Amino acid sequence: MRGTDDERSLVRLLWRHGFAALRAPASGGATRMPRPDILAGSDRLGLQLAIEVKTTRNHILYVSVRSVEQLLAFAQRFGCQPMLAVKFKGRRQSWRFIRPDELERLPSWGYRLPLERLIKMGMTIESLTRNPSADNG
Amino acid sequence: MRGTDDERSLVRLLWRHGFAALRAPASGGATRMPRPDILAGSDRLGLQLAIEVKTTRNHILYVSVRSVEQLLAFAQRFGCQPMLAVKFKGRRQSWRFIRPDELERLPSWGYRLPLERLIKMGMTIESLTRNPSADNG
Repeated sequence: MRGTDDERSLVRLLWRHGFAALRAPASGGATRMPRPDILAGSDRLGLQLAIEVKTTRNHILYVSVRSVEQLLAFAQRFGCQPMLAVKFKGRRQSWRFIRPDELERLPSWGYRLPLERLIKMGMTIESLTRNPSADNG
Repeated sequence: MRGTDDERSLVRLLWRHGFAALRAPASGGATRMPRPDILAGSDRLGLQLAIEVKTTRNHILYVSVRSVEQLLAFAQRFGCQPMLAVKFKGRRQSWRFIRPDELERLPSWGYRLPLERLIKMGMTIESLTRNPSADNG
């Protein structure tokens, strides 16, 4: 299920912070090619992002291998950085941005991201737009 | 009216020639911000494009000032190159790519692009993907 309202709210947030951004269309249509939920770019920051949007009402977010692989494949081909935008709902958390390689790899089928890790490792929109390299390391 | 089939066919063409590409969603939704019909990028070519798609069954294409201004505004903010993808239908013409500044400015309300000028100035997908700077000058 796509959280279209979440994506729209994130697109508005990105515009307010200086990005140009657009959502991918809801229906597959043209291709079966991988694609992110949102593409955003800021010439000022020298930063272009392929963004996968994830929300959860749990305290741990699980992300499939396929989801991450498709994001990486698109970003690599397009020539931009892969990024997850995550919101833990009902926990007074705003959007945080985290790179796919900062997720915890599970031994089996995918990745996990506990809320505490996101708070520690993830960037707010303010830190993302202060930091042109999108590198919070 | 949006030529969704035309846009999908162009997205497929771009993928076949090494780009990652996606269409903007059909409905406005999130924002009233300007946006192109298609975003495409090729890391290999070092080329990212905001593309406005135009087709006509006439032998001259007319483009509004607003349409061009919105394309330029989005591309400048995102950090990519503005480009028109044009097809003259029913004339055995394939897609050609032309920069907005190569349209002919009309004294009044917009721009025009005769078929002969597109054939002379426009790039085919092959010349676009041979030419990393997207500069056919």
